[in-house]
Amino acid sequence: MRRPTGDLRRKREVRSLCVKACGANVSVDRINGRKVNGINGQEAPYLGTKIVEQVNGDVPMHAFKLGRFVEESLVYRQTFVIRSYEIGPDKTATMETLMNLLQETALNHVMTSGLASDGFGATHEMSLRKLIWVVTRINVQVERYSCWGDVIEIDTWVAAAGKNGMRRDWIIRDYSTKQIITKATSTWVIMHRETRRLSKIPEQVRKEVTPFYLDREVMAADNDTNKIDKLNEETAENIRSGLAPRWSDMDVNQHVNNVKYIGWILESVPINVLEDYNLTSMTLEYRRECRQSHLLESLTSMKNLGSTHLLRMQENKAEIVRARAEWRSK
Amino acid sequence: MRRPTGDLRRKREVRSLCVKACGANVSVDRINGRKVNGINGQEAPYLGTKIVEQVNGDVPMHAFKLGRFVEESLVYRQTFVIRSYEIGPDKTATMETLMNLLQETALNHVMTSGLASDGFGATHEMSLRKLIWVVTRINVQVERYSCWGDVIEIDTWVAAAGKNGMRRDWIIRDYSTKQIITKATSTWVIMHRETRRLSKIPEQVRKEVTPFYLDREVMAADNDTNKIDKLNEETAENIRSGLAPRWSDMDVNQHVNNVKYIGWILESVPINVLEDYNLTSMTLEYRRECRQSHLLESLTSMKNLGSTHLLRMQENKAEIVRARAEWRSK
Repeated sequence: MRRPTGDLRRKREVRSLCVKACGANVSVDRINGRKVNGINGQEAPYLGTKIVEQVNGDVPMHAFKLGRFVEESLVYRQTFVIRSYEIGPDKTATMETLMNLLQETALNHVMTSGLASDGFGATHEMSLRKLIWVVTRINVQVERYSCWGDVIEIDTWVAAAGKNGMRRDWIIRDYSTKQIITKATSTWVIMHRETRRLSKIPEQVRKEVTPFYLDREVMAADNDTNKIDKLNEETAENIRSGLAPRWSDMDVNQHVNNVKYIGWILESVPINVLEDYNLTSMTLEYRRECRQSHLLESLTSMKNLGSTHLLRMQENKAEIVRARAEWRSK
Repeated sequence: MRRPTGDLRRKREVRSLCVKACGANVSVDRINGRKVNGINGQEAPYLGTKIVEQVNGDVPMHAFKLGRFVEESLVYRQTFVIRSYEIGPDKTATMETLMNLLQETALNHVMTSGLASDGFGATHEMSLRKLIWVVTRINVQVERYSCWGDVIEIDTWVAAAGKNGMRRDWIIRDYSTKQIITKATSTWVIMHRETRRLSKIPEQVRKEVTPFYLDREVMAADNDTNKIDKLNEETAENIRSGLAPRWSDMDVNQHVNNVKYIGWILESVPINVLEDYNLTSMTLEYRRECRQSHLLESLTSMKNLGSTHLLRMQENKAEIVRARAEWRSK
């Protein structure tokens, strides 16, 4: 393992200061050898961290985070209110919104566990090695979409996926009825931040994360794990070219944020499908990263209430994302 | 005034049911002739509505709304946590995020006041007349941008703007220090939902809204009210054509959401400005509505740390938004 020197070390210090300045610090305890956030493995009031600040006689800061550990600290639970700008033309939360909230819950899970080093999901041992998590596949199954003002509760937990992967599952419930309205599962692997090459999970990282593993699958493993066909000019019915990522589509790594791909995928879906049908399931297979300078093409093939999609670079046709979706009449 | 009949009436019933299904109903009391939400004009705990539900022994539903009336019900205050997907490449909340949160606070203000009829800002008397509010101008001045996990508190209130307009102001504070980090002001007029023609404020509507007016200006009136120059091919230094609204940019009226324009405006700003400078002020003047089928052009002229912008239709060069911005080195 190489230690960072000079500029790199300074960069890390600056980033660490930034995370601190942003109030993202958490206080960490150790219980039975497992790092927890001071909640003692029991259901606690809706606070995600041990820091209890009462500011100006108002509501304590932590109350706004609305996240906490449940089930012996193996499940992280966070509550959200659907906002007016998170709903689509049909007045319900969009698939993009759901994936954003899943991402937020996952990141807060890592932050609250005390594992996070850089504030974006990497553990301490990963940061030392310049390693980051990247998602390779996500499947979201939606039973019911929420409306503006609805309160939803998201549970998330992680488990091993093969030798060098991590699985992350989510359940979204309607807060008032506790009815399950969405299930999601994803697969993550480790990548080097600079070389962008995939890496095995180092033993030290495995030791950090396995105490948090919970072997519970939100949906059957054989559900939707079959490969997604690769579309081409002949098999696609609709092709939309010239799609340009905007500056505002970039994430902190100056790459296109995972969730943004959904918008481009939907650009080659016939408008009557978008208007008259709801997505009930969407699977994304991420194959390649994308930067702002790339022009994209979106390909779609509809078969009854199922669709297959490909997002690729316009110039060299390199694949970025394959996707599959299922639709239901509104 | 025409009463709706047949199909139209059914449509309204369906919409009203939808709002109800979405849990957006509020209970309304009347105190000293002014409609309030049961908070009795005093600072109350962070609940926006009178509905107090304790569900499954968990946190009551209203606690998640985090909005409430303050200052004798003339100011509406809501608290937000900045989420991971609301920050830009430099890890701070984007201008788009700020405007989204201002919009959310404004809508919740109207909902919580008991004035809202259709759930999107129109009052009862407006809905009867098929009238809606449209924003003609907004100015946002940012002192400091927030990071992921930061808690911010937004105050908003309304006042008369001339004979037929409404002014809405906002203040954003850092929740923990109470320091003002952003100020914003906007002008609204009334439009007919179907003819899209501007309308005077009907007397009945004026009677509904004036009890909520608070004559307090968040910034001096002469600040930034001078007209924004209209750019053209000769005066603009950068022109970016072929910008296509996506399905996901549409709002519930199938028009481009006001906030989305910011993304396109920034598309013609030089990349080094986006990377090295922060927006400290942005003024948008909305001139024309935009639907999904329109292709757009973004024009920018930079003068030192100030910029002027125009967003127009590509086909007939009709103006959609004029904008002006100020920048500060990061």
